[in-house]
Amino acid sequence: MFNVRILSQEQIKSIVNIQDAIDAVEKVYALKASGKTSVWPLVTYDFEVGVSDMDIKSGYIGEIEIYGMKAVSYFSQNIKIGLPNLIGVLVVYDAKTGVPLGVLDAGYITCLRTGAAGALGIKYLAREDASHLTMIGAGKQALYQMAAALVVRPKIDYISIYDGLSFENSVEVADNAVKMLAELGVDASNVKFEAVKDLKTTVENSDIIVTTTPSRAPIVMNEWVKPGTHFSCVGSDVSGKQEIDENILSRMAIFVDDRTQCINVGEIETGIKKNIITPDDICGELGEVILGRVKGRVSKEDITLFDTTGIAIQDLITAKKVLDIAEEKGIGTIVDI
Amino acid sequence: MFNVRILSQEQIKSIVNIQDAIDAVEKVYALKASGKTSVWPLVTYDFEVGVSDMDIKSGYIGEIEIYGMKAVSYFSQNIKIGLPNLIGVLVVYDAKTGVPLGVLDAGYITCLRTGAAGALGIKYLAREDASHLTMIGAGKQALYQMAAALVVRPKIDYISIYDGLSFENSVEVADNAVKMLAELGVDASNVKFEAVKDLKTTVENSDIIVTTTPSRAPIVMNEWVKPGTHFSCVGSDVSGKQEIDENILSRMAIFVDDRTQCINVGEIETGIKKNIITPDDICGELGEVILGRVKGRVSKEDITLFDTTGIAIQDLITAKKVLDIAEEKGIGTIVDI
Repeated sequence: MFNVRILSQEQIKSIVNIQDAIDAVEKVYALKASGKTSVWPLVTYDFEVGVSDMDIKSGYIGEIEIYGMKAVSYFSQNIKIGLPNLIGVLVVYDAKTGVPLGVLDAGYITCLRTGAAGALGIKYLAREDASHLTMIGAGKQALYQMAAALVVRPKIDYISIYDGLSFENSVEVADNAVKMLAELGVDASNVKFEAVKDLKTTVENSDIIVTTTPSRAPIVMNEWVKPGTHFSCVGSDVSGKQEIDENILSRMAIFVDDRTQCINVGEIETGIKKNIITPDDICGELGEVILGRVKGRVSKEDITLFDTTGIAIQDLITAKKVLDIAEEKGIGTIVDI
Repeated sequence: MFNVRILSQEQIKSIVNIQDAIDAVEKVYALKASGKTSVWPLVTYDFEVGVSDMDIKSGYIGEIEIYGMKAVSYFSQNIKIGLPNLIGVLVVYDAKTGVPLGVLDAGYITCLRTGAAGALGIKYLAREDASHLTMIGAGKQALYQMAAALVVRPKIDYISIYDGLSFENSVEVADNAVKMLAELGVDASNVKFEAVKDLKTTVENSDIIVTTTPSRAPIVMNEWVKPGTHFSCVGSDVSGKQEIDENILSRMAIFVDDRTQCINVGEIETGIKKNIITPDDICGELGEVILGRVKGRVSKEDITLFDTTGIAIQDLITAKKVLDIAEEKGIGTIVDI
């Protein structure tokens, strides 16, 4: 009845890069702050806590008249049977008629838009002179965070990599970073990458800290954090996850991607539940900073946080860009649904 | 990365019929009552109240290890531009790995499983000797409700059709019912179909009343309803919709498809909000009646209600049946996602 474009991960990889995703996510954050989007309630389910879960994110972008949803699952044991741990599908609809426009692999778009989110926190909140980034979590997402960070902040020349679960992973990421970033179109030949074990010393010397772990307990302690540091906390996206000591929150200028979602499932969840901060302590959504309606960092001494839980409109705007280019170039399979 | 089966509405029509859907929905209601399913929170959005909306229903069926979601929109103006008013896509995933199994048109499956739901209310709650069914609402869904009702209750020999918005619609449905039901594989040659204008008298003489309208105000009044009547209320599925006088509720034995969803958005919503009934007045979910754990109708005088809001597991179990047959018969398009 409808001609719907189906796009595989490989096809999507041939169409968009990290810079496209940063532009798209920056635009959609601003649209959100202008009231031109709607983020619908998150649906999450744990098949087995810590082992397998899934979430459904959905929303609407009025400005470009699309809506849609993404269901992404995490099955930690998949790797043992040769499947990716993160799998999902994104469906984009025309918001004027409800006609489905595309069904896309959600994996690569999720990687890109998540990297873009962390980096936009850096772009708008980190100190101008920031040059030392610490990456906490050496999983798949670390690469996209580093790529996007380097795009928005070419001044970064030193990246420390820490992984609490596996030092070997952080060594592997450090050793292969230049090559892997080049594959994403990012030249990191002048950046020093170092796997680290002593997180305390590393944090003390970092300008920017990006966290992308599935942790449910603090990894970065309050005492380690010097004034002027920026945090982009990316890992906490379901209730109970936490990456930084909740006591840091009271020292921070806090920014979020979506107020409701961050309060419920983001990095700030624990601090709010423990009354260390209240929702009123949130300075604003990043889109408000992008629009200049809310001030971001106001001094070199500020400790800033961008708490990003991930919202469907990031995926949708990126997917729309992908679909438009795919149509132009004739990429993908058109099927009748 | 994954081979996913895509099925169009036409392909799905060639695979399942109303009897299949009744069997599937009956099974999944029972699985739900056995705790082997999970119905996830409903996401709804009004683009323009009463004009265009969409909902996302999702859930998990442990017994057959699938989960998934369906997004269906209603754009009332579509018909003017040659598009259906109801459009949607259903995505089914393997609950052991998160791998997507199929992307299906949701329209026909929604029609079938909604008809099946109304009919299962009749099967388990209407009087054994019921023979006069009144169909309120002469839209597209009326056909599926009548088809499924006739499958579960071959004794029905008289169907009155009422449409408060358009008498012409009810005449058209009545005139074409035998032919259209035959196309769905249901022989209704011995059934009398009659379009009616006087709803009061019709209700007074009905054994079974099925409502499938988008109404937001009561259509059937309390005073009209005689003891022994059964209601399957299908139309109310978002907050604010209502088809029957909330004062009937206190006279009724109330059964639901999903307790939470019916309290929040079902036919019983208004009665609960106005304190005419409380959630404790719900006798049970229909699945509990199917399993024999809760009694359904206990006397010929009972006025019974099956409030069905529609749950994703109905779609998912039907979709799984469709996918299995499609695989066996080699129907559909396999794409790489």
